[in-house]
Amino acid sequence: MPAAMTGPHEVAELIARIAPTDTRAAEQAQRLLDGKTKPRRSLGRLEDLACRLAAVRGTARPPLPAKAIVVMAADHGVTEEGVSAYPQEVSGQMLANFASGGAAINVLARHAGAQLLVVDMGVVHPPTARAGLDIRDARIAAGTANFTRGPAMTRAQAVAAIAAGAGIAHELARDGIGLIAIGEMGIGNTASAALIMHRLAPAPLAECVGAGAGQDEAGMARKRAALARAAARSAASLPREVLSEFGGCEIAMMAGAVLGAAAQRRPVLVDGFIASAAALAAIRLAPAARDYCVFAHQSAERGHARLLEAVDAQPLLALGMRLGEGTGAVLAAPMLRAAARLLTDVADLSEVVPG
Amino acid sequence: MPAAMTGPHEVAELIARIAPTDTRAAEQAQRLLDGKTKPRRSLGRLEDLACRLAAVRGTARPPLPAKAIVVMAADHGVTEEGVSAYPQEVSGQMLANFASGGAAINVLARHAGAQLLVVDMGVVHPPTARAGLDIRDARIAAGTANFTRGPAMTRAQAVAAIAAGAGIAHELARDGIGLIAIGEMGIGNTASAALIMHRLAPAPLAECVGAGAGQDEAGMARKRAALARAAARSAASLPREVLSEFGGCEIAMMAGAVLGAAAQRRPVLVDGFIASAAALAAIRLAPAARDYCVFAHQSAERGHARLLEAVDAQPLLALGMRLGEGTGAVLAAPMLRAAARLLTDVADLSEVVPG
Repeated sequence: MPAAMTGPHEVAELIARIAPTDTRAAEQAQRLLDGKTKPRRSLGRLEDLACRLAAVRGTARPPLPAKAIVVMAADHGVTEEGVSAYPQEVSGQMLANFASGGAAINVLARHAGAQLLVVDMGVVHPPTARAGLDIRDARIAAGTANFTRGPAMTRAQAVAAIAAGAGIAHELARDGIGLIAIGEMGIGNTASAALIMHRLAPAPLAECVGAGAGQDEAGMARKRAALARAAARSAASLPREVLSEFGGCEIAMMAGAVLGAAAQRRPVLVDGFIASAAALAAIRLAPAARDYCVFAHQSAERGHARLLEAVDAQPLLALGMRLGEGTGAVLAAPMLRAAARLLTDVADLSEVVPG
Repeated sequence: MPAAMTGPHEVAELIARIAPTDTRAAEQAQRLLDGKTKPRRSLGRLEDLACRLAAVRGTARPPLPAKAIVVMAADHGVTEEGVSAYPQEVSGQMLANFASGGAAINVLARHAGAQLLVVDMGVVHPPTARAGLDIRDARIAAGTANFTRGPAMTRAQAVAAIAAGAGIAHELARDGIGLIAIGEMGIGNTASAALIMHRLAPAPLAECVGAGAGQDEAGMARKRAALARAAARSAASLPREVLSEFGGCEIAMMAGAVLGAAAQRRPVLVDGFIASAAALAAIRLAPAARDYCVFAHQSAERGHARLLEAVDAQPLLALGMRLGEGTGAVLAAPMLRAAARLLTDVADLSEVVPG
């Protein structure tokens, strides 16, 4: 089981369990839709989504997915280089805010009827009153190391984070969750995501670096310089190396959640730029995982459009958001349920048209 | 009251009741959002939507809108010219399908928790078992006249349809509905909408004509030729003239619903190409109505992108749908409620950040 995963061998086993999605079920779903009381293909991408769900679940009438959003939080040593507009304390404060229900993701998850699971993957300043808060402890480290000076994580830490993500996906699937959405919180994590994109998309570093949660020109210059130093330090280009050299605990965990969801044949709804970088790593580890991913929202973060191209994705929404936390994913989640309902609930032409 | 409206004088009174939206309330809402536990403006267009709702309702904390979708159906005499891929009988069959709960809009409205109101504005073949079906009878005519040969409606019919739409908006607002979505069904109505766009956007006719529910090249040639003949027949360019010369009963009614919603200070969620043409007519009649409109979905119908530009709108969704019925509007509806919740439910920075 994923929770016992301790080395590269187990990650390889997880990857080996990911089967291609079922194209026959998708074709059957399209035929079902073509027999409904509407012009063919007139529901556009909502029909694609219905067929995608059918392919993922291996049946033309996939069950309606109960939804969970997993928000994974961690800190990043690279913030020492002044790459972020916010201090590291904010990650822990936001964890407490998630746990007490006051963050944007809480409000949107409640609104979408999605279960929310908050996971501490390694913030430097965890909430002090931890005992009373509903935060899953899966800490890998008290933040990553500064990747401009050395690897962000050891290989073992990266594998443990992937395993934790796969374990959560496994647990949610076992508990009847049919749609797993992934989101994150972590001061400095757009810097980490930019390097992952640079090496795995791949794309020129300049096209991967954006303003994150908000940066002025001086901050952007520091961020670009720090990322250039990190890129010069390590030539890593294989996905597992890239995750440990430049990744974050929450990013490696999201990659593991994508792999775990795919292994369980569950669709995974990918939030914005950072979650997409994690999905990219998962897809480079296991190309068959791609078709289990639904990309929810095109972020305002520079680089996201090209990152989505690298995984051949057209996201469902483009609302100019750049918060993370899974907010784009939960906004898009109801559409998947709506798409599944088309297959079962819309009348067939034969029911209403005489003859 | 709108229901008693019988002439141009009453339409003028309705228009006079439409006040500009409250920009101060919108600014207050933005200040509220700027004090929440998230980077400023990081929720992008969801924040715009929250501010728009505040402006429409005149309060920085607008009530959560209960939703209704009104689907207005009617037939179009221009189908004699072979402009549509479907026979006119389909409009009546689809009315019956709406009333028995089997159409895509039924499924999506139930999913979104929106009340559905189906209105017969004038289909040629209404369902025969009408008595047992929940269809509002607001018939203006048994379909419009063929607008290639003469006006589609008399001026009195167009005014009566506008009045019926305003009356429904008034009734829904009185019944506590805070968000009115408009959609339609009517074989041939993309032809009517194309001419309305041509005259009121305005835009060259060639850019307004698309394939509607599905047309082959021969059908498109017939449609283009018929619309060119209609355009040559009448030089109408004032919105009320254009509605009676080229409009449909359901289109004039949707225009009235927009005016009525604006007069009642309710947001109106506009579906695809045909609903947008109706909103365009309403906005040309009453420019202040623009800011009460939220455009839900950019349709795959050729012309819609330019029509949206003409009313300076960027729709919330672009899913390549082209069904109508209000399907785009109900898919987008939950986002308005989510936006309103941000203003009331997300924690303020002062609650979580020490100092």
